[in-house]
Amino acid sequence: MDINKIQNPLFLKDLTIKECNTLANDIRSFLIDSVSKTGGHLSSNLGVVELTIALHKVFNSPEDKILFDVGHQSYIHKILTGRAKDFKTLRQYKGISGFQKREESDYDCWEAGHSSTVLSAALGMAVARDLEHKTYNVIPVVGDGSIVSGMSLEALNQIGSENKNMIIIFNDNNMSISQNVGALTNGFSKLRTSKPYTSFKTDVKSILKKNEAGKTLLAGMSAIKDKLKDSVVESGLFGEFGLEYLGPVDGHNIKDLIHILEAAKKHDGPVVVHVLTRKGKGYKPCENDKLGSWHGVGPFDVLTGKSLSSTPVGKLTWSEILSETLCRIAKTNEDVVAITPAMITGSKLEKFFAAFPTRSFDCGIAEEHATTFAAGLAIAGKRPYLCIYSSFLQRAYDQINHDICRMDLPVVIGIDRAGLVGEDGSTHHGVFDISMLKSIPNLILCQPKDGDEAQQLLVSAFMQNHPLAIRYPRGTEVYKPITTLEEIKMGSWTRFNTSDRTKCIVMTYGPEVDKVLTKIKSNDLPVEVINCRFFKPIDEDMLRQITNEKCPIVTYETDMLEGGLATSILEWACDHHLQLNLSRIGIQDEYITHGSLNQIRKEAGIDIETLFEKIDKLIK
Amino acid sequence: MDINKIQNPLFLKDLTIKECNTLANDIRSFLIDSVSKTGGHLSSNLGVVELTIALHKVFNSPEDKILFDVGHQSYIHKILTGRAKDFKTLRQYKGISGFQKREESDYDCWEAGHSSTVLSAALGMAVARDLEHKTYNVIPVVGDGSIVSGMSLEALNQIGSENKNMIIIFNDNNMSISQNVGALTNGFSKLRTSKPYTSFKTDVKSILKKNEAGKTLLAGMSAIKDKLKDSVVESGLFGEFGLEYLGPVDGHNIKDLIHILEAAKKHDGPVVVHVLTRKGKGYKPCENDKLGSWHGVGPFDVLTGKSLSSTPVGKLTWSEILSETLCRIAKTNEDVVAITPAMITGSKLEKFFAAFPTRSFDCGIAEEHATTFAAGLAIAGKRPYLCIYSSFLQRAYDQINHDICRMDLPVVIGIDRAGLVGEDGSTHHGVFDISMLKSIPNLILCQPKDGDEAQQLLVSAFMQNHPLAIRYPRGTEVYKPITTLEEIKMGSWTRFNTSDRTKCIVMTYGPEVDKVLTKIKSNDLPVEVINCRFFKPIDEDMLRQITNEKCPIVTYETDMLEGGLATSILEWACDHHLQLNLSRIGIQDEYITHGSLNQIRKEAGIDIETLFEKIDKLIK
Repeated sequence: MDINKIQNPLFLKDLTIKECNTLANDIRSFLIDSVSKTGGHLSSNLGVVELTIALHKVFNSPEDKILFDVGHQSYIHKILTGRAKDFKTLRQYKGISGFQKREESDYDCWEAGHSSTVLSAALGMAVARDLEHKTYNVIPVVGDGSIVSGMSLEALNQIGSENKNMIIIFNDNNMSISQNVGALTNGFSKLRTSKPYTSFKTDVKSILKKNEAGKTLLAGMSAIKDKLKDSVVESGLFGEFGLEYLGPVDGHNIKDLIHILEAAKKHDGPVVVHVLTRKGKGYKPCENDKLGSWHGVGPFDVLTGKSLSSTPVGKLTWSEILSETLCRIAKTNEDVVAITPAMITGSKLEKFFAAFPTRSFDCGIAEEHATTFAAGLAIAGKRPYLCIYSSFLQRAYDQINHDICRMDLPVVIGIDRAGLVGEDGSTHHGVFDISMLKSIPNLILCQPKDGDEAQQLLVSAFMQNHPLAIRYPRGTEVYKPITTLEEIKMGSWTRFNTSDRTKCIVMTYGPEVDKVLTKIKSNDLPVEVINCRFFKPIDEDMLRQITNEKCPIVTYETDMLEGGLATSILEWACDHHLQLNLSRIGIQDEYITHGSLNQIRKEAGIDIETLFEKIDKLIK
Repeated sequence: MDINKIQNPLFLKDLTIKECNTLANDIRSFLIDSVSKTGGHLSSNLGVVELTIALHKVFNSPEDKILFDVGHQSYIHKILTGRAKDFKTLRQYKGISGFQKREESDYDCWEAGHSSTVLSAALGMAVARDLEHKTYNVIPVVGDGSIVSGMSLEALNQIGSENKNMIIIFNDNNMSISQNVGALTNGFSKLRTSKPYTSFKTDVKSILKKNEAGKTLLAGMSAIKDKLKDSVVESGLFGEFGLEYLGPVDGHNIKDLIHILEAAKKHDGPVVVHVLTRKGKGYKPCENDKLGSWHGVGPFDVLTGKSLSSTPVGKLTWSEILSETLCRIAKTNEDVVAITPAMITGSKLEKFFAAFPTRSFDCGIAEEHATTFAAGLAIAGKRPYLCIYSSFLQRAYDQINHDICRMDLPVVIGIDRAGLVGEDGSTHHGVFDISMLKSIPNLILCQPKDGDEAQQLLVSAFMQNHPLAIRYPRGTEVYKPITTLEEIKMGSWTRFNTSDRTKCIVMTYGPEVDKVLTKIKSNDLPVEVINCRFFKPIDEDMLRQITNEKCPIVTYETDMLEGGLATSILEWACDHHLQLNLSRIGIQDEYITHGSLNQIRKEAGIDIETLFEKIDKLIK
């Protein structure tokens, strides 16, 4: 059928299983073709084609609430709810989002880009529903990588005791973005390979009932363990939370899916439906991917699976530059260990993990634990490098403050994907970390301007003994391995294009330093640039120099303005009773949408053109 | 024996069980007597007297690492490691801390005031130990309230897969601060009432082995479930994490404790020792406390158990004022629901929970989940009041940002214990929330100056539709139920003591407003006071007026200076190209110790005397 013509999921009600299967094939083709052009999340969506069809066939969205954890696997949901025609704009500026988005459709009842939120949110909805004596279904869909995250487990603990009607779809593909880790995966494996719940239960009981000894045992065990065995053996972790368990069911068999979902719908109280899916199902390059390389992709060639974009020659991604450097440091410093919460591939730590397997730790999606684990390592003499995306680091604010910085422990935090990230949008922009972290005592916070400085900063970070966070953006940068170390003094900034005729000073950080400098030089403007590579501590000596020079200053920030670089300068000037002629550019008090970096920077008013308009006014 | 003469735990090695029991009695008497004079955490410590003696008898601290989760139950540990003589200074300025504190003793290898950190930290230590080929024991002690928090469960997930030697003491008193909640408590109850592990295992196997059917069944079940039953049935939740389980053992029987700890010490890999303790053991008023009233106490009369301090007549605690008001609001607004992470008593929500049981939710120690649960309730039409201590709210930064504010959901967050809290010290001071929250879009952040304004603000909070956080300190305040509502305009400040002769303006917030005002009036000073009751949004109209008046301004803040009230004013002035003559007072970039509020405020330079010295200089 013509996928583009789907208006809403009502048509599914009349489809036969055979027609549903045809639809699944059509959607899969549509999806591969579409994402090959726009880029996006492919593997996770290919895994839930049949599941999403079955959900929309059995349930009545938007009355019934279907919540996708993280939300990047909601493409089929978007297609079935009338948004196929918009897929050419997927993740593009003013196009449809790559995640569930409430303003986009009534069918999107929840939105998230961070993992493990739907169980909590769904419980809230179920409680609210019952308080209002309504009867709609609440159906959170959560993966096996997300469900073991602390927040999910906290939610399960309350779900088990509130006893509200909820159908928890446990979408088990035996992977997070890459391979799963942690002890709970073993329990899931056992459930996965067990016979489906109902038949297994009958089997055991029939064996036991065959003779007197068995009967006595059955009675005795029930008495002793209060039927604990019944619920636990057959439902693993979920039994511990007092949850009914249905499954496992083949997540690519629409008939079985419909059958089990209908059963779940009739159930009173919360129930877990264990659905076995295969990430990337139906597209070989995705199916064979064990590393998560196909988790989020740019445009690619459908036939070969080859990416159509490539890293420019001589450049590496910032993640690669930091990780390469970390490997070099770790060769000579045996105390260096690396920690990531399920982001080996994203943070490009594969090499480190291969070279130093006993010193590498993937904690799973568990930013909170990972951070305090790093604190424990540091207290026992190690030099941990804790690598987390800026946006996900928000999960670890307390652990950074209470467990690392309060005890002044020498943990180096690599803040990956700092700044606007582009197409992933508001949930993923790493624009809060500076203002979030800056008021925490003992912490040093910095950002290198280029590949050289990234290396020098990281080496210097391990030469001092305080908690230090080094942030770096998405994207690529020139990389040449440094041959000589120049230890960077903590809190020191650097000045460029100083001259007698300076009429204005731009203070900025990260890759903007060179971009701004290049443009200034090519236009021969009387403008100086300061590389404010430390947000904390700031370079007070240099600030004193600048304020003596009494030039107008423009701070050019690419993160939240509130509590950013300019703020530190203003606070310092206030305490030193100095008046500054300072104008600030940065992200105003609002969430930034998705789109190309150029487009959203322009919308946020932090594009380089805005800066130079301001400079022009000041130097005239 | 004379408890005060204990130097270190070595003497325990030579004690008989009988002598250990006598010691336990002596320690208990010492503890009750000592805490009755100083105040402190009593119940939790009375529960672990025998356990701590047994730990120090079996293990060799400080080589072996004993970590107490939260740390408020480390009093016996402090006594046994030579600090009994300092107990008269407990929690006092420059006295010993109420928590484990590394600078206080080599025996304190970890410190924390927030729950659920020790499993992560202990794993870090165990990993570091093995990397360095050392052999010391790592022994985290964690309670049944803390172990179900997300961070602990994340840690268990990795502990189960790393397989490092670790002895996890599961201190199960069947309570958090008050009664436990959540589904996992049921599983713990079952373990608690089961026969000890080893004998139970033998019993079942012997029954099964009695006849052929049993043998076949035993073999069959093992094959089918891959010994899942063995590990799961007998070890509950811990089996799911692949952890060996020993117990339960009576936590007040030193002989049994020593026996099981010796067994655990010989075990290879991580093991959970399930210890059943009774909170408040040996002191009736504590033993009978189900509400947590004896969790942390002030000085009391040992014979009667009556508190020696009392709330002044006509006053209530801030927590009570907010909760009373919430009850009044909830009577007319049926959508209002209340959520607390295990702090019903602390946040004084007992009345609300009693009056509106179906609209009250204790999520257990689970700030992350509780916050997103509130988001789910809000999205489904409810008006949640989420009440969390400032310091613990740090755990929920991401959920506030990503799940509440990003979707602009009308959740009212009550930030209890905002500001310095006094005796609990650096882990509990609620001084970061303003700078942590201020850069989050859509959020309104405010603090009332008195009991009347608290009521008006809370009512007004429920009359608007954005996320709003209302912070309030520890301590008491005059309370008179308001009879008429004056809806407070969001972002509006108020001015006091305006006059033609004003020579200086003090901008402050919370209870400081009236304190400052009283002192100004009684000294007839030409000083105006502004009640900056909103940190965000700020009152731009009033700021414009003030800047026109060109008076010197002093901002008087009692939280972190970085990113606080003055910062917002400086940022605003910068963007409006206005120069201010502003001096700021607030907490500098450091952690603040424990002690009375007066003492630590003085040390932090935020006492009222410091303010008036500054005022004096400005008006002269």
